[in-house]
Amino acid sequence: MGRAIARKLSQEGASVGILDINADAASETLEDLVSKGGAGRVAVGDITNEDEVKNAIGDLIGSLGSPSVVVNAAQVTRFSHFGEQSLAQWNQSMAVNVTGKFLVSRSVLPNLLGTGGSILNIVGTSGLIGLAYSTLLGAASAAVIQLTKSMAFEYQDRGVRINAIAIGGVDPSQLAHLGFPPGAAPRHMERMLSPLGVPSPEEIAGAVAFLGSQEARSITGAVLTMDGGISA
Amino acid sequence: MGRAIARKLSQEGASVGILDINADAASETLEDLVSKGGAGRVAVGDITNEDEVKNAIGDLIGSLGSPSVVVNAAQVTRFSHFGEQSLAQWNQSMAVNVTGKFLVSRSVLPNLLGTGGSILNIVGTSGLIGLAYSTLLGAASAAVIQLTKSMAFEYQDRGVRINAIAIGGVDPSQLAHLGFPPGAAPRHMERMLSPLGVPSPEEIAGAVAFLGSQEARSITGAVLTMDGGISA
Amino acid sequence: MGRAIARKLSQEGASVGILDINADAASETLEDLVSKGGAGRVAVGDITNEDEVKNAIGDLIGSLGSPSVVVNAAQVTRFSHFGEQSLAQWNQSMAVNVTGKFLVSRSVLPNLLGTGGSILNIVGTSGLIGLAYSTLLGAASAAVIQLTKSMAFEYQDRGVRINAIAIGGVDPSQLAHLGFPPGAAPRHMERMLSPLGVPSPEEIAGAVAFLGSQEARSITGAVLTMDGGISA
Amino acid sequence: MGRAIARKLSQEGASVGILDINADAASETLEDLVSKGGAGRVAVGDITNEDEVKNAIGDLIGSLGSPSVVVNAAQVTRFSHFGEQSLAQWNQSMAVNVTGKFLVSRSVLPNLLGTGGSILNIVGTSGLIGLAYSTLLGAASAAVIQLTKSMAFEYQDRGVRINAIAIGGVDPSQLAHLGFPPGAAPRHMERMLSPLGVPSPEEIAGAVAFLGSQEARSITGAVLTMDGGISA
Repeated sequence: MGRAIARKLSQEGASVGILDINADAASETLEDLVSKGGAGRVAVGDITNEDEVKNAIGDLIGSLGSPSVVVNAAQVTRFSHFGEQSLAQWNQSMAVNVTGKFLVSRSVLPNLLGTGGSILNIVGTSGLIGLAYSTLLGAASAAVIQLTKSMAFEYQDRGVRINAIAIGGVDPSQLAHLGFPPGAAPRHMERMLSPLGVPSPEEIAGAVAFLGSQEARSITGAVLTMDGGISA
Repeated sequence: MGRAIARKLSQEGASVGILDINADAASETLEDLVSKGGAGRVAVGDITNEDEVKNAIGDLIGSLGSPSVVVNAAQVTRFSHFGEQSLAQWNQSMAVNVTGKFLVSRSVLPNLLGTGGSILNIVGTSGLIGLAYSTLLGAASAAVIQLTKSMAFEYQDRGVRINAIAIGGVDPSQLAHLGFPPGAAPRHMERMLSPLGVPSPEEIAGAVAFLGSQEARSITGAVLTMDGGISA
Repeated sequence: MGRAIARKLSQEGASVGILDINADAASETLEDLVSKGGAGRVAVGDITNEDEVKNAIGDLIGSLGSPSVVVNAAQVTRFSHFGEQSLAQWNQSMAVNVTGKFLVSRSVLPNLLGTGGSILNIVGTSGLIGLAYSTLLGAASAAVIQLTKSMAFEYQDRGVRINAIAIGGVDPSQLAHLGFPPGAAPRHMERMLSPLGVPSPEEIAGAVAFLGSQEARSITGAVLTMDGGISA
Repeated sequence: MGRAIARKLSQEGASVGILDINADAASETLEDLVSKGGAGRVAVGDITNEDEVKNAIGDLIGSLGSPSVVVNAAQVTRFSHFGEQSLAQWNQSMAVNVTGKFLVSRSVLPNLLGTGGSILNIVGTSGLIGLAYSTLLGAASAAVIQLTKSMAFEYQDRGVRINAIAIGGVDPSQLAHLGFPPGAAPRHMERMLSPLGVPSPEEIAGAVAFLGSQEARSITGAVLTMDGGISA
């Protein structure tokens, strides 16, 4: 998903800063952009590490200037019965899915003030409705949605917008491949199903481009659901 | 707002059907499109009148074919102390803001099934949060949001999407010009204020174009807020 | 449901004013209260008729004094495919489910100001989530929820509270008896099912008593869901 | 707040298990209950420590039996500009406000299944609306609300209910005493103000008793707001 977003923003003329814990993946993404005539820069770092975030953001902004759109797209998740989630899994989900977005947002914020730039947080639609076997991503996504709303309101008059995109929906034909836990009840999974399925990375990238554009100038604190209607 | 949306969709190559109770306004909009190389057709009718809606939609679809995007943009509103709203004002708000959208949606639905086309309902952000002096539009907007969600879910697997755009936000400098009732409390109006103001018709048209596009293929039952963060 | 609420409030010592379009039903409810040592008064009237509401409320308040809790419990509904709902059904739902609550609320409001009294609107949980075949009650319930919120905010500092109770949930064993339309899809109905079923009239009455009590002094603009978790 | 809830549940006849990190505070609470004819037991432990939670819950259930209501009331918070929140503060908020409730809930769940018992999570209303200077509690509260909803849905048919109470509202006369950060904007704080103020511990205890009672049998996945209408 991150790569599709990078490609879309590059196509629209942006220089793309890529922050990834995986140096190879980040380089491949950049090479892909460059091969199509784009430009950008890679910073390798762990978004859950305060110093690495600070250094990486400093490096990217030093090279590319203040960003117009910052996309928090990192995500870890797994489906599991609530009672069988380990504390280690819980802590990892909170660290990557929530604290990482907090650290990146806090770090870029001074460079966004007054620019009209925006932050986009990508979360799961399980942050909006109660889904079984999804507590890890659901609780983390809800935390990020609320981070989005409270930042949006606090910085409403300081020239920076903060929005979220909530992704979900399971195509019934894919149900068997998604790693639901043994004993998962069909009626619990029913709530996640949509014939429209999950949006493709390119569709998510399209929404990122729209929400980051000038046409979205008045949109802040919003949560755009792309989930085939499962949270309707 | 309707004209800006018509212009935007025309620029993107659509033939635009215009349903308006005001024949002159509708003709002016169509002339504007045609003068820029666009095309379309006007049907004059009252969206609160079942037969007129049926005939108008029949005429437009007969001429232009099945629509790819149907935009319900008609709206009447006024700010008023709750206790001073007349039954006549209430009934007019319900008729135009809610029942009109119900009648148009029910009328176009058979022609949207299986096409991937979509309905877009434009409402006020007062349908999402409790705002003073705004009961008329708030109650009507909430009804339309729920109409959007229940239709989206019921027709999720039948090739038609239904979404809403919720508009709001008052630029503090415009507060004196908006017709708030005498005695309106500053702290009540505070909740509606945003330095980002209300979106322009062109910005709303941009959101309509995005939500009606193929990139929004998985978006249904969604409410996109364009309100400067006041509902965050 | 109205009778159970009347009985509960009577048991707690209230004199109960009963406004009903059906004179016999209202009298039976009052006789039931009196037979258990309670007291009250009946006013017969149509809540969708402005004058009848005014006269009935005037009569009840004239006899019983200003109310401490006003419960808007009237409701009409039917399950139907969206495309098969007639305008007459739509208008009746809007009139009884929404406009009636508007008229009663507007009429009692002057007598509630500064008293600490409250209004309770009973709605369907279909006003909170998108349910198929439920557009009529869903749109109406959402309108009333928003009426609740905007009134609550507008009158927050004037000594009157306004809240809603959202009822829903279908016990799977009752599914066949609820009048779903022919061709209703099992996966659509799945979203309404809860083994906890719908709350009993006595349980709803308990919630009314709690929300009307002094312990709920800080609760206004709230929507308490009693629906077996289907809107979670 | 915890003490008021303990007292209320004790008055209603419950034996109260008290889990607190502070042994003296817990003992004082128990003495208070016993002095009024109540009974209970103290377990000292840190809710953010997996082993301590397991041992404490084991001890309490071993002595008192399966609980009918489990109340997660621990909370840490502070108001702060978003950009000035330290990672240490963020981590502490996530640990106490979210992870602690996760660990306690996961630990008691096996003993609640099939009993009709319930879990009540006490959160801030900043988990529902975007409030400035409140990101810490807001993000944590939203995570807990979502934990509540997803658990409620997953365990809907297994005889255990999970609900939340969202507390908020600032009496304008108390604004100066609440520790808002220097430079906090009056219009940001306006959104938190309600003449109804924050609910008293006794009022919160009343809501706990209601939601834990048999009258609330069909209530699960619900969030009851007690906030003077600020989230309306």
